[in-house]
Amino acid sequence: MTDLLDTARTLDAADPLGAHLDAFVNAPGVSAYLDGNSLGRPLKETPERIAEFIRTDWGTRLIRSWDEQWMDLPTRLGDRIASACLGAAQGQTVVADSTTVLLYKLVRAGVAARPDRTEIVIEESNFPTDRFVAEGVAAERGMTLRWLTADPIHGVQAADVAAAANERTALVVLSHVDYRSGALADMKAITHAAHEAGALMLWDLCHSVGVVAVQLDECGVDLAVGCTYKYLNGGPGSPAFAYVNERHHQVLRQPIQGWMGAGDVFAMSSEYAPAASIRQFISGTPPVLGMLAMQHMLERIESASIEGIRAKSISLTELVVRGVDEELAPLGVRLLSPRDAAVRGGHITIGHERAAEVTKTLWQDGVIPDFRFPDGIRLGLSPLSTSHVEAVSGVLAVRDALRA
Amino acid sequence: MTDLLDTARTLDAADPLGAHLDAFVNAPGVSAYLDGNSLGRPLKETPERIAEFIRTDWGTRLIRSWDEQWMDLPTRLGDRIASACLGAAQGQTVVADSTTVLLYKLVRAGVAARPDRTEIVIEESNFPTDRFVAEGVAAERGMTLRWLTADPIHGVQAADVAAAANERTALVVLSHVDYRSGALADMKAITHAAHEAGALMLWDLCHSVGVVAVQLDECGVDLAVGCTYKYLNGGPGSPAFAYVNERHHQVLRQPIQGWMGAGDVFAMSSEYAPAASIRQFISGTPPVLGMLAMQHMLERIESASIEGIRAKSISLTELVVRGVDEELAPLGVRLLSPRDAAVRGGHITIGHERAAEVTKTLWQDGVIPDFRFPDGIRLGLSPLSTSHVEAVSGVLAVRDALRA
Repeated sequence: MTDLLDTARTLDAADPLGAHLDAFVNAPGVSAYLDGNSLGRPLKETPERIAEFIRTDWGTRLIRSWDEQWMDLPTRLGDRIASACLGAAQGQTVVADSTTVLLYKLVRAGVAARPDRTEIVIEESNFPTDRFVAEGVAAERGMTLRWLTADPIHGVQAADVAAAANERTALVVLSHVDYRSGALADMKAITHAAHEAGALMLWDLCHSVGVVAVQLDECGVDLAVGCTYKYLNGGPGSPAFAYVNERHHQVLRQPIQGWMGAGDVFAMSSEYAPAASIRQFISGTPPVLGMLAMQHMLERIESASIEGIRAKSISLTELVVRGVDEELAPLGVRLLSPRDAAVRGGHITIGHERAAEVTKTLWQDGVIPDFRFPDGIRLGLSPLSTSHVEAVSGVLAVRDALRA
Repeated sequence: MTDLLDTARTLDAADPLGAHLDAFVNAPGVSAYLDGNSLGRPLKETPERIAEFIRTDWGTRLIRSWDEQWMDLPTRLGDRIASACLGAAQGQTVVADSTTVLLYKLVRAGVAARPDRTEIVIEESNFPTDRFVAEGVAAERGMTLRWLTADPIHGVQAADVAAAANERTALVVLSHVDYRSGALADMKAITHAAHEAGALMLWDLCHSVGVVAVQLDECGVDLAVGCTYKYLNGGPGSPAFAYVNERHHQVLRQPIQGWMGAGDVFAMSSEYAPAASIRQFISGTPPVLGMLAMQHMLERIESASIEGIRAKSISLTELVVRGVDEELAPLGVRLLSPRDAAVRGGHITIGHERAAEVTKTLWQDGVIPDFRFPDGIRLGLSPLSTSHVEAVSGVLAVRDALRA
């Protein structure tokens, strides 16, 4: 069997997306950045492009830029993410707020559309914010949460949802890619199972947008949210996006009624009348500065294509799985992600009782994975910015830290 | 009487804050920017400081910056705004979301704290987002809105609130400075009137923060929100801030439960337990990129002091009022702002039936005020970036456009 690093070098040499690797800001002292799925790296062009934006679009055009380009930025950028990454037709996606706030809006809108139903189905190890939002909405609407217990490695299956959802279910809320295991859910089958029960389906795409080819329209999805600071490299705390399928635009209503979601923003009318379009899901002034860096990344995603990115993502995760088997399993490390690439997203999680201590050592040595309580190390592999050699060097650094 | 422009030149020559004027990005072709109260100008230093932030804090420190500096940025920056502008002790202010979303959280939190009460008192010409939020919350909680009708120039008086608020009133929601007339409300007397009725008081500080010296603690205010892209120059769509007086931290609960407002953010616990501090009013990931530019402006506000800024603001508005009297009143222009500087904020609004057309002409000529439906022109005067000559040249440009 070829040496891991040799294999990595060979794969890098043949990587059709390899030219993108040099486009990201260098981080001196960081030999392997394996947390692009928590915070994607900035592109080298981004500092100067944002500086120029501040000098001209903000500093020179001043308030005029709202008319000239910013008023429709949330929907224009939403459409762009929809085309490049979500398999969604235009007019259904908007960039705004944070994932948490958009989740709140869509969960509220979703349960209100099923007023006779009393339950929200959610997975018990879903990301905390998803659970906390659902818990809060359930409490305020007098509803109950129905908890799904999923396989910790393979995640929620369609059969789980079919068994849990029934005539009491208003909404099913799930993550497309599990933030811990990286398990990739069967969006089409699960959405179908939710619909069979008459429920709406809301997907959290935080760990899939930009790395997995999502097909929201084809899968019949009702609602989705996602963040832009992971694989869309929007920068720390860049705004989130929401997708609401067009068939719901005349029916669903979100609760945070603000001037930017009104049909006529500057009419200053006496009563709130929501826009008829996806714009109704906006509340306050769009966070323009936070919407810039992701546009630079989207240019590259469009150029590479989400299918090309997914292919490299699989190549990276396959290599890391091999590395775990060969180098880490003998040291007691467990693979906490699916072995089958078809049901796996863009990151690999491994388990070891010394995970917290090892992560600390790695950070000090310039190898940056993510520690996941209680004993997981998450290796994020952002296809455009991560090489195979970088991925393998991360695995070898874990090995060395465990041996030390 | 001295010529207006001569007076302006004399005032500029003696302006103790005049050195700040040159600190802002030049806008070629703009001779008078009178909309700093819609979108404040960027500082010249801001493009490169943000570029450097992207290269280092984001691009080099990467995910480590969350531990090193970003997790407590919302409260650290909130405290800084509180000290510099709000007359509020530490630990009561947080930067997050948009004004609309924070209004929603605080209105919900406020009415929930008075569960036996059924009314929200709000002024009928308050900024749309404030009205829309209150309208939405009232509808979802089965409450009613009690509309205050205020004098269009002098705004809401304490007697109006005393007459409207009673044992049914849960919350009074008002703007400190009226977005149209610029009327400055008597925060202390109105807050007292709300409290006399047993209601909580929520102030919208969008048009006062950074230009008027606010005294939240001394006035006994319960809740406040404000935006940072006007006189704090945070950039388009920069996040808002919320103030919740410490006496309410153990009682008030906001509805958008997210991971960043939890007591232990990374515990990934099974149930939401809010932080005991002001941090509980955060929901999602803080919008870090949007929190940078306002820090550069805050350095200058701290240096100039809010009292110094208010003094210059009064000097600017007094001069504009004189200009309106001398140059515009003969052309049929009405002053739509209070004459007494003590009850006036940082902008002056004038009325004329040709306001829309005049504003359009002015914009084409590089004089940028704000049109306010149906017949108002709002002259925003941001003390650190606006000279007296600039203010007067705006007035003279209105005169010339009306004469044309």
